Amino acid sequence: MQIDRSHLERPRSDFAAGAAYVRGRFVPIAEATIPVTDFGYRRSDVTYDVVSVWNGVFFRLEDHLKRFQSSMRALRLEPAESIDDLRQILAECVRLLGKREAYVAMDCLRGAPRPGMPRHPSNCENHLIAYAVPWVWVIPEDVQARGAHLMIASTPRIPDESVDPKVKNFHWGDLTRGLFEAQEKGVDTVVLLDIHGNLAEGPGFNAFVVKDSVVLSPDRGALEGITRKSVFELCDDLGIEHQIRAISGAEVLDADEIFLSTTAGGIMPASRINGRIMGNDRPGPISMKLRETFWKRRAEGWHATPIEGLS
Amino acid sequence: MQIDRSHLERPRSDFAAGAAYVRGRFVPIAEATIPVTDFGYRRSDVTYDVVSVWNGVFFRLEDHLKRFQSSMRALRLEPAESIDDLRQILAECVRLLGKREAYVAMDCLRGAPRPGMPRHPSNCENHLIAYAVPWVWVIPEDVQARGAHLMIASTPRIPDESVDPKVKNFHWGDLTRGLFEAQEKGVDTVVLLDIHGNLAEGPGFNAFVVKDSVVLSPDRGALEGITRKSVFELCDDLGIEHQIRAISGAEVLDADEIFLSTTAGGIMPASRINGRIMGNDRPGPISMKLRETFWKRRAEGWHATPIEGLS
Repeated sequence: MQIDRSHLERPRSDFAAGAAYVRGRFVPIAEATIPVTDFGYRRSDVTYDVVSVWNGVFFRLEDHLKRFQSSMRALRLEPAESIDDLRQILAECVRLLGKREAYVAMDCLRGAPRPGMPRHPSNCENHLIAYAVPWVWVIPEDVQARGAHLMIASTPRIPDESVDPKVKNFHWGDLTRGLFEAQEKGVDTVVLLDIHGNLAEGPGFNAFVVKDSVVLSPDRGALEGITRKSVFELCDDLGIEHQIRAISGAEVLDADEIFLSTTAGGIMPASRINGRIMGNDRPGPISMKLRETFWKRRAEGWHATPIEGLS
Repeated sequence: MQIDRSHLERPRSDFAAGAAYVRGRFVPIAEATIPVTDFGYRRSDVTYDVVSVWNGVFFRLEDHLKRFQSSMRALRLEPAESIDDLRQILAECVRLLGKREAYVAMDCLRGAPRPGMPRHPSNCENHLIAYAVPWVWVIPEDVQARGAHLMIASTPRIPDESVDPKVKNFHWGDLTRGLFEAQEKGVDTVVLLDIHGNLAEGPGFNAFVVKDSVVLSPDRGALEGITRKSVFELCDDLGIEHQIRAISGAEVLDADEIFLSTTAGGIMPASRINGRIMGNDRPGPISMKLRETFWKRRAEGWHATPIEGLS
């Protein structure tokens, strides 16, 4: 693929708020738009992924690219760009942004039906969008330090049978309702249960329960998070037992510790659930150990891909 | 609200493919875009409605505006424009399009979080988009004439508990999967059951079962369609018994007739379900009677609002 280079004539300051790749061109984030008729918007017929840049390096870039590719395959989306193209596009977005900490997104949208063709998703030109914006914490750092106050949302997560949570998607109606409920109740964020009452996930993160020194993570109803995968690796290295299994709502409420994981936040401890104080109202010891080790390893270059190597 | 009139300086031909209202201005449909960072796209945090124009008049405009208003309220969306503004905006889109048959959409999107504010949906500027495009049939006319060939999708519809189907939304992952399944099996479209195995809805339409001369419609799992409401009114006028209740998958497969209803298609009969031929492999008598009466009434000005009256 030949990448359009016309953006190199623009002042770098144009990209300070974010740099995007849309319809084959690099543009400032404010110019990155999608048509109102695109099924990616109108039917949420789209998949995406997000990789983080910290200290100037991508974290687990190949894992994210692999998951994105598998999500696109599941939805039968085929953009013009190859994964090799995409790797270069993401690096160029980060270079244009000019920050050492960034949130880097890639979306593949269905597109709009070709004129004159039946309005079937198979008649659309799929297309890729990517962008890098300055780092944002899903949960602010001061909240992470005291431990997030959580509640179980009254809305159940969309079941796997209807929309596969392993294919990263924007079906967030239930999660958004949860965020408003959290705001009403004065807590930081929510975790959702599935329709059977087992822990699923929260708005933008995986959730873990620690009970009797064992780290538990749901076996379904949630994204197979890449930070979640990193948690399992750290547990193995630190000799912490972990299990992937159904976790009932009662077990969530009875947890010794709860922590959350996400690309835009790493490992984020909680200190309260449904008003109940866990431990001493501070992040628990296993959550803290995992969080500290996570950021220490990242500073050491764990699973890192330098941006320079991608040009 | 003062409506921007700068579009009146553009040639009318610019709007032949569609006329849109975005960010307070009227533009050709190709220029109607949303930011890639808008939660309306990124979290499918949006509601919409669609009203039809046929023979130069809106059909049940006030019903659509009322439903749209109630959907916005349910999602806590508050655009700058009032419903009176919206009525004028829709009419202006249709005038600009310059067609007597049109598909007219209105969306209210969450927007992107204000810079520097936490990424919570309550920190966004909600905004309205509207557009009119030339009429499109959800099911082509020749297919309607022979009766659509349907199948029950293997994917269950997202449950009401997770995402309320009465608030018109773009959570279409399950419906899109159904459309691909239909294509693979060589049928026209699909109906989805809910997770309990009862009839829900299809991609863009309500579904009805006729059994022993009674018209049945699901009591949950589906949009409260305005064409569906019209079907009930026609049943009353024509002396056809109708019931709103749970309809099992077995009842769907054993139907005497099945028909579908939608704004972009009216009342659309089916002739086959899962390969089984219903009746004589043509639209059944009750479906045909309802369809004919529906279009006859519309030609007579039933529930009509002339565009001119809205200027």
